[in-house]
Amino acid sequence: MTAEAPVGIFDSGIGGLTVAHAVMQQLPRESVTYFGDTARVPYGPKSPETVRRYSLEIAAFLVEQQVKTLVVACNTATAHALPLLRERLTIPVIGVIEPGARAAVRATRNGHVGVIGTAGTIKSGAYERALRALEPSLRITARACPLFVPMVEEGWVDHEATRLIAREYLAPLQSEEVDTLVLGCTHYPLLKHVIADVLGPDVTLIDSAEETARETALVLRDQRLTAHNPAGPAHRFIASDDPLMFLQLGQRFLGDAIDGVEVKTLG
Amino acid sequence: MTAEAPVGIFDSGIGGLTVAHAVMQQLPRESVTYFGDTARVPYGPKSPETVRRYSLEIAAFLVEQQVKTLVVACNTATAHALPLLRERLTIPVIGVIEPGARAAVRATRNGHVGVIGTAGTIKSGAYERALRALEPSLRITARACPLFVPMVEEGWVDHEATRLIAREYLAPLQSEEVDTLVLGCTHYPLLKHVIADVLGPDVTLIDSAEETARETALVLRDQRLTAHNPAGPAHRFIASDDPLMFLQLGQRFLGDAIDGVEVKTLG
Repeated sequence: MTAEAPVGIFDSGIGGLTVAHAVMQQLPRESVTYFGDTARVPYGPKSPETVRRYSLEIAAFLVEQQVKTLVVACNTATAHALPLLRERLTIPVIGVIEPGARAAVRATRNGHVGVIGTAGTIKSGAYERALRALEPSLRITARACPLFVPMVEEGWVDHEATRLIAREYLAPLQSEEVDTLVLGCTHYPLLKHVIADVLGPDVTLIDSAEETARETALVLRDQRLTAHNPAGPAHRFIASDDPLMFLQLGQRFLGDAIDGVEVKTLG
Repeated sequence: MTAEAPVGIFDSGIGGLTVAHAVMQQLPRESVTYFGDTARVPYGPKSPETVRRYSLEIAAFLVEQQVKTLVVACNTATAHALPLLRERLTIPVIGVIEPGARAAVRATRNGHVGVIGTAGTIKSGAYERALRALEPSLRITARACPLFVPMVEEGWVDHEATRLIAREYLAPLQSEEVDTLVLGCTHYPLLKHVIADVLGPDVTLIDSAEETARETALVLRDQRLTAHNPAGPAHRFIASDDPLMFLQLGQRFLGDAIDGVEVKTLG
């Protein structure tokens, strides 16, 4: 495995591009090979078995593409498939849950942390487990917000309907006075402004994409796999369906950093 | 093929249960075998090739289950796969687009028809083609409403946010004065009240589920395949993933008519 090899990142669709974006910002010399499983998105409502099967297929494909590490940039896939991927792969595997959980434990002052995510992520209890493993005395309030992903994908990140939905979803977290909120879905950083407006300045928002990129930097350093790429990085974006829609939505996340999308059919 | 065999119905997920419901109401002696591709839902954003591949797989599975006719209760699958399914299968194949289009042409007085559906259905232009084939002089205004399905699946069919979203989606149809609106997605009948409130009493709503059930009755009569089932019908519901979620959401569509769900993994 060479240090100049790309960082592999996958998600059920385009949401993981917030993680790719954070990796590109924090590690500007690293090449990224991103796989979005747009043919089978969303993973949130799917069973753990199905999500594990899909994750193994994608990991095998990315290993063929010679990635030096694998970032599971999907909360649902991290919740259901991370231990299995770590068992099966010989390269380091990084999930999106532990880094966000660690940052939340560091940030909270009143010991009461909120978590929001898709129905699948919240039902899995993965954030609760990760948070409690770090700090057993924590109070945790979790809430599924299934409409946030469609609102982001529709581009209505600043719409009155989005504010109404956010107010309804976040009300229980406010009334229980969480002081730190983990954005437990890779789409949610695009709603950071709306969520911050609803919750006010006293609640710290934890962006798991940023935290996962930080974790990736540490893992690469520990494994002596940090790239130099004097000619600059080379990014690849691969979708399992409809590259044009991926490109259009992808530019909402990444701007000009994405200028072409390859297709690899899975499933 | 015996007349006592079940009517096969498939959809990308649970939305097609509005069609199953209409078939059960209008044809109370018919047994229904319903397949919901919940592992791969939604079809709307997927490419035509992928939707055709999935539709053929499901049709083959339902033919194995001995269905006497196939109702494609998914607008996206009808738009992309109906001709191919008719070519490949020997049983009658009924889609959801033609019946709704025919009802709209009958209903309009000012010759201006609106169509709403998922991004995939609207982009396919399938309703425009079906409407123009019936009445070339028609004026047609089509609009994708991608947030309606998630709002229905969240159960917010009467929420203020749903009204705001409906007002924004339907505004162009109002200002262009359509007098007839085709609900071109099987989830939308559950939003009929909100849509009717926004558009007012002068706009006729065409429920494609009702129209498709009517078409099914006619096809069965023509083919002498109408069931008698003196012991009463026997319904089966099969999902490609998470039968529990299918059951919970399914009861929102069908009430007690659904009391168990089988699983068949595809893809």
